[in-house]
Amino acid sequence: MQTAVPIAREAEALPQPYLLFLGDITEPGYAKTAYGLRDWAPERCVGEYGCAGGTVSAGLPAMTPARARMLGARAMVIGVANPGGRIPEAWLPALLEALQAGLDLIGGMHARLGDIEPLRNVALVHGRRLIDVREPPPGLPVASGRRRSGRRLLTVGTDCALGKKYTALAIARAFRDRGLDADFRASGQTGILIAGRGLPMDAVVADFAAGAAELLSPDADAAHWDVIEGQGSLSHPAYAAVSLALLHGSQPDVVVVCHEHGRETVLGHPHFALPSVEETIDLALRLGARTSPGIRCAGVSLNTGRLPAGAAEDAIGALAARLGLPVADPMRGGAAFERLVDACLA
Amino acid sequence: MQTAVPIAREAEALPQPYLLFLGDITEPGYAKTAYGLRDWAPERCVGEYGCAGGTVSAGLPAMTPARARMLGARAMVIGVANPGGRIPEAWLPALLEALQAGLDLIGGMHARLGDIEPLRNVALVHGRRLIDVREPPPGLPVASGRRRSGRRLLTVGTDCALGKKYTALAIARAFRDRGLDADFRASGQTGILIAGRGLPMDAVVADFAAGAAELLSPDADAAHWDVIEGQGSLSHPAYAAVSLALLHGSQPDVVVVCHEHGRETVLGHPHFALPSVEETIDLALRLGARTSPGIRCAGVSLNTGRLPAGAAEDAIGALAARLGLPVADPMRGGAAFERLVDACLA
Repeated sequence: MQTAVPIAREAEALPQPYLLFLGDITEPGYAKTAYGLRDWAPERCVGEYGCAGGTVSAGLPAMTPARARMLGARAMVIGVANPGGRIPEAWLPALLEALQAGLDLIGGMHARLGDIEPLRNVALVHGRRLIDVREPPPGLPVASGRRRSGRRLLTVGTDCALGKKYTALAIARAFRDRGLDADFRASGQTGILIAGRGLPMDAVVADFAAGAAELLSPDADAAHWDVIEGQGSLSHPAYAAVSLALLHGSQPDVVVVCHEHGRETVLGHPHFALPSVEETIDLALRLGARTSPGIRCAGVSLNTGRLPAGAAEDAIGALAARLGLPVADPMRGGAAFERLVDACLA
Repeated sequence: MQTAVPIAREAEALPQPYLLFLGDITEPGYAKTAYGLRDWAPERCVGEYGCAGGTVSAGLPAMTPARARMLGARAMVIGVANPGGRIPEAWLPALLEALQAGLDLIGGMHARLGDIEPLRNVALVHGRRLIDVREPPPGLPVASGRRRSGRRLLTVGTDCALGKKYTALAIARAFRDRGLDADFRASGQTGILIAGRGLPMDAVVADFAAGAAELLSPDADAAHWDVIEGQGSLSHPAYAAVSLALLHGSQPDVVVVCHEHGRETVLGHPHFALPSVEETIDLALRLGARTSPGIRCAGVSLNTGRLPAGAAEDAIGALAARLGLPVADPMRGGAAFERLVDACLA
């Protein structure tokens, strides 16, 4: 085990507001980051910009980097991915134009902006920054296990990619709608862009992962809520370590378990049956109690995106009856979701 | 979560045999790495070398790097630590002498050999390597969860620093003494030096930690045993993620739980009560079953180093009666340890 290193300050905020870059893509499925920003951080987005050939829009005003800069934008965010995770040659002129217009560049792809020489050179000349949100800050601490002030909620999944981020965003918004002081705390790249800050938990060295989670939701006022984006699943054959570090370091008072109706095997690992919601609740409470003795499960967020409205309502009702806990699909909202939010605050 | 990258080959062997470097230390407590190598890998050590002022010996023949090279040594290992984890100026002439004599340098301290300019320059001129065993290899894969051939045993702890490495070494040696084909698999820096290869699990990025553990004990003959050095504890407030990744990726058929008699709180975290041996067994089996459905606990390795012989025997007997499982202190050996080894193979 490694020994402690000097403690990093809370993750710094990204330069904002953003101009969203949509590249030359024609497939809306690759614009998930842009859509997430439009849906959850419209106040951070002044407009969108694409290259010739692109057909996808996030529905924001189209504008050049120079115009966005004039309207107050401080960075252009690469809001799209392409299949290889690379930055195509065709995007370069637009990226350079943004730097020349006085915008920083923010990316969350596997390819690092700083590895592209023309971007590096032009950023240097214009005093602009190339920010990769997958890159954790230096000097992360080893977790101390010290209890922090304030209240915390963590979303915990039965699997990857089924709504932990959206659930946390929806609950944080609902808390604020009720007049509470609440922050969404981002642990993955899209969440970090939406929140404007955060820590990419999956990219942290294992010994410092729980320490990074502690840093993500620092001491706060007694009535303040941090609503923390979960990662992976405690039963995931590859990523459970990330989930456990996040659970231990977050010290949540409350967990909300996230599941997708009908998903039966682990995404990308078809030989692994998905754990049941009951097993996931039990594991989260048992393991979470190590650093948060009073931890409890407020209910379940059920992703019913593939069901028609009536069937979704049935699925939500059936699971709520089976568990004896509030169950809701935050994307559908309604009374069920209000009951889940009530239970989080109970 | 990150997507898979090209799969790294099994961790390459370190250049061997070694000359052990003892620096100028006068406190035997700082020579744990050298003692570990002397005790567990004497066949990899041709001799020892120190600077003026040093008084500690590992009991090996003292010799210069040039002489060691002549006797077949291929690397000089820094076998001591100093309180700050730094490499003192006073060691530099000896380190440079080793490079000039044709030896690679291997370090496991926090300070990286490659960050020291004179070492870098001389290594370059002489075509020698500076190897930091805390540095994981590039290209580690995301875990697949695929079951591998061969048999595996993992040591699992109630805490850090209480005998997981020594237990794994002792069990691997006992297996070989019984004519079995067995490898010790190292997951930390001292273990890596002893084994001559391995992966520093605590230094791996969290998303790839279970994948690294899969790489550490690759497919093998059906009768072959990998005896894997555990790390941390599943209940550790800072390091549980490393332990869980190692458990999931190792897919152990058998775990041996390691505990120190009388330890009541987590090392360095006095506000955390140590989990009981029963809790540790239960967690390891429950979480381990995710990737190794037939997992079982063969028994407990109890570190009784602080007790006189009679009291140690009593403590071992009492714990064995309480658990209904074989319990032994591998450092004391004897019939109790043979029964534990029997149970591992049962």
